Amino acid sequence: MAGGRKIIIDTDPGQDDAIAILLALASPELEVIGITTVAGNVPLELTSKNARKVCELAGRPDIPVFAGAIRPLVRHLVTAEHVHGKTGLDGPVLPEPAMPLQERHAVDYIVETLMAEPERSVTLCPLGPLTNIALALNREPRIAARIREIVLMGGGYSEGGNVTPAAEFNIHVDPHAADIVYRAGVPIVMMPLDVTHKPRTSKARVGAIRALGTPVGLATAQMLEFAERFDIEKYGSDGGPLHDPCVIAYLVKPELFSGRMCNVEIEISSELTMGMTVVDWWGVTERQKNAMVIRDIDSDAFYALLTERLGRL
Amino acid sequence: MAGGRKIIIDTDPGQDDAIAILLALASPELEVIGITTVAGNVPLELTSKNARKVCELAGRPDIPVFAGAIRPLVRHLVTAEHVHGKTGLDGPVLPEPAMPLQERHAVDYIVETLMAEPERSVTLCPLGPLTNIALALNREPRIAARIREIVLMGGGYSEGGNVTPAAEFNIHVDPHAADIVYRAGVPIVMMPLDVTHKPRTSKARVGAIRALGTPVGLATAQMLEFAERFDIEKYGSDGGPLHDPCVIAYLVKPELFSGRMCNVEIEISSELTMGMTVVDWWGVTERQKNAMVIRDIDSDAFYALLTERLGRL
Amino acid sequence: MAGGRKIIIDTDPGQDDAIAILLALASPELEVIGITTVAGNVPLELTSKNARKVCELAGRPDIPVFAGAIRPLVRHLVTAEHVHGKTGLDGPVLPEPAMPLQERHAVDYIVETLMAEPERSVTLCPLGPLTNIALALNREPRIAARIREIVLMGGGYSEGGNVTPAAEFNIHVDPHAADIVYRAGVPIVMMPLDVTHKPRTSKARVGAIRALGTPVGLATAQMLEFAERFDIEKYGSDGGPLHDPCVIAYLVKPELFSGRMCNVEIEISSELTMGMTVVDWWGVTERQKNAMVIRDIDSDAFYALLTERLGRL
Amino acid sequence: MAGGRKIIIDTDPGQDDAIAILLALASPELEVIGITTVAGNVPLELTSKNARKVCELAGRPDIPVFAGAIRPLVRHLVTAEHVHGKTGLDGPVLPEPAMPLQERHAVDYIVETLMAEPERSVTLCPLGPLTNIALALNREPRIAARIREIVLMGGGYSEGGNVTPAAEFNIHVDPHAADIVYRAGVPIVMMPLDVTHKPRTSKARVGAIRALGTPVGLATAQMLEFAERFDIEKYGSDGGPLHDPCVIAYLVKPELFSGRMCNVEIEISSELTMGMTVVDWWGVTERQKNAMVIRDIDSDAFYALLTERLGRL
Repeated sequence: MAGGRKIIIDTDPGQDDAIAILLALASPELEVIGITTVAGNVPLELTSKNARKVCELAGRPDIPVFAGAIRPLVRHLVTAEHVHGKTGLDGPVLPEPAMPLQERHAVDYIVETLMAEPERSVTLCPLGPLTNIALALNREPRIAARIREIVLMGGGYSEGGNVTPAAEFNIHVDPHAADIVYRAGVPIVMMPLDVTHKPRTSKARVGAIRALGTPVGLATAQMLEFAERFDIEKYGSDGGPLHDPCVIAYLVKPELFSGRMCNVEIEISSELTMGMTVVDWWGVTERQKNAMVIRDIDSDAFYALLTERLGRL
Repeated sequence: MAGGRKIIIDTDPGQDDAIAILLALASPELEVIGITTVAGNVPLELTSKNARKVCELAGRPDIPVFAGAIRPLVRHLVTAEHVHGKTGLDGPVLPEPAMPLQERHAVDYIVETLMAEPERSVTLCPLGPLTNIALALNREPRIAARIREIVLMGGGYSEGGNVTPAAEFNIHVDPHAADIVYRAGVPIVMMPLDVTHKPRTSKARVGAIRALGTPVGLATAQMLEFAERFDIEKYGSDGGPLHDPCVIAYLVKPELFSGRMCNVEIEISSELTMGMTVVDWWGVTERQKNAMVIRDIDSDAFYALLTERLGRL
Repeated sequence: MAGGRKIIIDTDPGQDDAIAILLALASPELEVIGITTVAGNVPLELTSKNARKVCELAGRPDIPVFAGAIRPLVRHLVTAEHVHGKTGLDGPVLPEPAMPLQERHAVDYIVETLMAEPERSVTLCPLGPLTNIALALNREPRIAARIREIVLMGGGYSEGGNVTPAAEFNIHVDPHAADIVYRAGVPIVMMPLDVTHKPRTSKARVGAIRALGTPVGLATAQMLEFAERFDIEKYGSDGGPLHDPCVIAYLVKPELFSGRMCNVEIEISSELTMGMTVVDWWGVTERQKNAMVIRDIDSDAFYALLTERLGRL
Repeated sequence: MAGGRKIIIDTDPGQDDAIAILLALASPELEVIGITTVAGNVPLELTSKNARKVCELAGRPDIPVFAGAIRPLVRHLVTAEHVHGKTGLDGPVLPEPAMPLQERHAVDYIVETLMAEPERSVTLCPLGPLTNIALALNREPRIAARIREIVLMGGGYSEGGNVTPAAEFNIHVDPHAADIVYRAGVPIVMMPLDVTHKPRTSKARVGAIRALGTPVGLATAQMLEFAERFDIEKYGSDGGPLHDPCVIAYLVKPELFSGRMCNVEIEISSELTMGMTVVDWWGVTERQKNAMVIRDIDSDAFYALLTERLGRL
């Protein structure tokens, strides 16, 4: 796997986080040098366990997993068991992980890795609340100039939020962390709900993954089926969205995506709009453009990529 | 014109306000019992003059026009001459109005009319900032139960705002007024940018109106051509949006529109999102539904209606 | 009473409002040209009735009383029956007023009076929420330059608030109105809790007023005794504060008071500090000084004045 | 020094921080087990150097000093060189420190120490922005139940703030950190400006310290003279306040102080009142009491203690 683009996945699995991790581990274009966990979809203890379960499912117990922030910077932790189930990874039955958690704190790992690796060689892939990333930027501001890129799942634009009318879950859980990250001067690619709601699950798409006939294929199908229930029941939609794998797919095949450089600011003062990603899509302000906001995806090609790659594990 | 639905148009003309007034005066389904003016696109003195110019253009100097609020409730007035021109009605050359302004203040007129007319017989059509409507509701809260409906142009949802990334002009100018109106318990139909951006001007559509060969047709075509410049230059679009006539078209032919009952709250505490209409389109909160949010329009039928009706003046 | 300084008292009686009105009517230095009422301590209907009761108690049924705003500009009305009793004027038994309410709305009266009277000849004395004053300034901004001075009871500095830890009742009830008034460019003298908490009631002070042996003396003593109960029970203090009469005493004998020109801004965005009067007493900002903030009073001389004047009625 | 109460001083020296450290090191009732530094009065590099200069001045190069947060949690760092001089410790000329900074991060040190020491045996003494304390509470929430007490200098009540009309410097620099600390459920004693403004410097008080005739006495006198300049010039006062030593004096002789258990909340949403410590001194809310707010001090006894103790070094 030498030669791949080095990434650190910061994550709170979550079924879609898990599938993103699998996609990354299956993609030779990427080298997952570490996984850091954060409280988000479920508490830290569970996300730290789930990340290791997924590494073992992929046959990669060698991946170092570091536990990070147990709570958001300023606000109380709000989790989403109603979406992801009690374990955060409901659906498949996966064995308890045998691989250990690393001893270092995730934030220390991120800081030390970025200071040790060549400048602009490591990409961060946050799939949950941005707490760890913000804490790392606070602890050692010099890492801002050393990060190659932050490609993150978070926020929404044209359809508002999923946890409040204005805010998406990852950003809403820790808006202050998001505010720090978006103001840090690091190149950001943002996968908002606008794009992650497009590659919806369907019988055919899930069926193709199950048809891989492998443990990974089966577990992924079970995770997709569990996760889509919430959306199907809540919104009466045909299938569920697939959020976090978009981040990894973008790193593997950016040509499947399109977007626009915009200014994005994070609302941190009003409870009504708390955690909103205020995207200046139309350039009505003079504010500096700080993020590539993705809004479109080739959903069929995305599922084709996902299925093919999962087949490699 | 007896038998038409009684409406009061509250307005800050503005070319699109002017066309909305013309459409209303040309529609036998509606009886325009009064026009009230407000500071918005341009200062009150100009909107009060422009409203009368339009009545005279329509051959209706009998319509009583009342001047209202000279400034928003709490914030400083911000106008939009960069869109509408110095007069607010740039484009055609219309004579100075001969008809007088009424002596009564618009807010008094609204309150007294609603208290005098049969309950739930009068519809308010606000086309600008909601200052007059809020002041009327504050001055005499009993009018809330006597208004048939408020059909207003304001706010945005899927594309954010046009004056800030989060806010539409009418609501942003006086968010506190909007907050009062949306919390008043009056049935509201809201025409946000989502819908008013759809019936864009085009050579064919403007040409058809000019081809009416009447003073009204000519002036309308000139107003459309002036107003579309801003959008064409700013956004590189093919034509301009047509906001306020949607309100009148909805009253005449509601079947051209579709939307959804939602909760809408107005952001009044954060400067970043000030004046945002926070629409709970997906019902992620338990808040009470207080507005029919329109999102779709049959644009061709809308232009057909507009052209046909303008031809009657 | 010719020759006195012309004042309009804007009020929500309230026992201390009532005593302020009595003090004004008893003072030849002042000419009360009108009283306007506002919702505050109790709803508008009661404050409008109470104002007339007090005029009649003073033998002045000729004073025109105008009812004003029924609710604050933006927020819901919160009243204070727990302090003032159900009627707002609990304590004495006063007959229902025979004198009528004026037909004009208080805001119209204020605007028209200020436009008709000589420039800078009329002083406004707001003793309750600033809703009427803000509405008048909004309706006719030219009055700002015609008001001689606004001498108001409201806000707090060194001891915070009385309705929240940060806010005083009058400002908290309608912070948006206060914001408008403090930004209007009118000379303001502000009597905050800092000063109005100093002239506390005592047996001797109330006894001296009762000893006047007049209906006014008796009713005033009864009002003072009713109003002091809340503070004595709540704070374990010896007596109660006397807020609104400070405004009138200042107009009669300014030499009893001392203060400092400061910038004062009103908090209108955060719920925690909503309605706080942010006084820059120490000049730590460059903001323009917009109010004389009174902080000291000669309490004994104040009670001597009050008692002597009430004895004239 | 065995047997003294164990304290960690978290500090951003600053002359008054330096004197607080000296007072602590001179007091056998206290055992300073570590000093942690934070960005505040001046940047972290300087506060970390100054803390070591002070230890060496006190003849205590054995005290471990740990550098902490380089910036506040969410907001940009604002420093106060206009008060403390370019070095943060202007006044005396102190040699560059020979003792090293510890390698561990201050936050790690705080967490690990609290987890290792007996429960409720270690007191934290924050003299600057609360960033380190908040980060430690975030990183390991279990420390909240292990801290004996937090005795901090910060906030203001009756005279508002010193950096804005509403906010004191330490809290204003990192209001989000303060918010976390005040909501953590740890026993807090708060020394606000109300009390720290009382023990003002005077010729006699500074002279008595200089008259100690020791390097510590001389340096302290020079620091006091430098620090008092700002207040004397800005406010025309006789002397300067002495903030941070109040924290240490309270630990040594609590009987010199008096205060009241109150609810204290931190304003983090409005820019106007950002960082205000909203103290519910009068119990007007039902919010839980979370801090002992000190408001009075025996200033003469305080200076007597300070002088006597400095004489021991």
